[in-house]
Amino acid sequence: MKIARFRAGRRAAFGVVQGNEIVETRGSIYSRFRLTDNRFALADVTLLPPTEPSAIWGPGVNFPDRVDAAASLRGEPSLPGLKFPEPWQKGRNSLTGPGNPIIIPKDSDGEVHFEGEVVAVIGKQCRRVAPDQAGRYILGYTCGNDVSERTWQKEDRTLWRAKGSDTFSPVGPWIETDVDPQQLELLVKLNGQEMSRSKTSSMIFPFSGIVSYISQHATLYPGDLVFSGGSGVSRPMKPGDLVEVEVPGIGILSNPVTAEFDSSGE
Amino acid sequence: MKIARFRAGRRAAFGVVQGNEIVETRGSIYSRFRLTDNRFALADVTLLPPTEPSAIWGPGVNFPDRVDAAASLRGEPSLPGLKFPEPWQKGRNSLTGPGNPIIIPKDSDGEVHFEGEVVAVIGKQCRRVAPDQAGRYILGYTCGNDVSERTWQKEDRTLWRAKGSDTFSPVGPWIETDVDPQQLELLVKLNGQEMSRSKTSSMIFPFSGIVSYISQHATLYPGDLVFSGGSGVSRPMKPGDLVEVEVPGIGILSNPVTAEFDSSGE
Repeated sequence: MKIARFRAGRRAAFGVVQGNEIVETRGSIYSRFRLTDNRFALADVTLLPPTEPSAIWGPGVNFPDRVDAAASLRGEPSLPGLKFPEPWQKGRNSLTGPGNPIIIPKDSDGEVHFEGEVVAVIGKQCRRVAPDQAGRYILGYTCGNDVSERTWQKEDRTLWRAKGSDTFSPVGPWIETDVDPQQLELLVKLNGQEMSRSKTSSMIFPFSGIVSYISQHATLYPGDLVFSGGSGVSRPMKPGDLVEVEVPGIGILSNPVTAEFDSSGE
Repeated sequence: MKIARFRAGRRAAFGVVQGNEIVETRGSIYSRFRLTDNRFALADVTLLPPTEPSAIWGPGVNFPDRVDAAASLRGEPSLPGLKFPEPWQKGRNSLTGPGNPIIIPKDSDGEVHFEGEVVAVIGKQCRRVAPDQAGRYILGYTCGNDVSERTWQKEDRTLWRAKGSDTFSPVGPWIETDVDPQQLELLVKLNGQEMSRSKTSSMIFPFSGIVSYISQHATLYPGDLVFSGGSGVSRPMKPGDLVEVEVPGIGILSNPVTAEFDSSGE
């Protein structure tokens, strides 16, 4: 089942995607809901980020092919063996929806990279959940782009703007509830050209492990988002580009790239 | 004016504190509101965290007397000169209210310290606001405790659990709208005994500078919280302690300290 959040006219609602239509739901997508008689053509609604999370989590380095790149960004020759995830948060302000522009900040030197990822959506509040139970607290999966400004990532002590600037967390287009999260393929396309292809079977820590680990100290709430970590090559995007994160079986998250309006007249 | 959020019976509301009473408000504390006829004795309500923030920001090291301690925690001989804040976020999950327990995680080795701080409350959405305009986007100030597990702060790559574990961000008791934020005194008491005393006039980056800096890349929203950074000595707390963060002119944030219930039987 595909659950989307959408705007029709001035109203925001949840709905279930059926073919080219979306059927509005009533109730809570996290507990119990039913379909209403309100149907819309997908083309007539605006898809929103699929949840309103209280937190957006990343796992730290989580694919073997990113270990060297991460070491280089940290100015270290190599990374010690990863025994645990290194959780961190993308600011809530950075969330944006499918189709919305990724805005390159005017003071970035241009190294704003895509990172296509799979994103788990928490379905039930959890705390100190065991890895083999964590899946029960996940509602489903969607696509995400962990947009990253590499210069700030190298130079700043924290990731607050490197990965948390406004529009740096596009997520969508909807939540797919019926997939095996560790058997997904993940593609990134820039202007229609395939840039990277990876598999969630390569994740060092599977979603259940990340969710369990975070929940040892931080309660996770319905709607919270947990990124998979990035894999493969990442490249800079420039204004005018179109970036697509595609997960067969889930869908395609597509975002145009624009420059921030510079009111300083420079 | 003192603005509080409180629970009376099963209902949560905002109100204005007048002496020993709280007068419920109607409307939005961020735009326009009026007082209602609903009055409660302060003793009869439960004070909640004064806002429901989308983000809780810290500035990084922000008092001269903390520079050496921060360098030591980072395993560095000294810190390079601080030209800018180093913004970071305490997880939304860590927020708790006045009177609520600070819970020492069962897997902490005991180095859970208080850090008394002053906290700015954002009143209006802002983005790329100049330092001399930032004050207009701040509604007022409250007290906060940047609870910090020092062992995790040293060993982990991020602050996710060192400063973001559940209950590690007590904030309150209310928002005072009429104070000069850079002329405040700040006291921390442990079991009634004064542990530290400092002044916001020593802040390396004043609140206006921190808010301006964060807003260059991250939109700040009404209710968001911006901590001052910690000053002075910090010491471990243990179950049974009572910690108070007092800012004369604002109020006292008081929290008991408890141990996490350990269901493992150890």
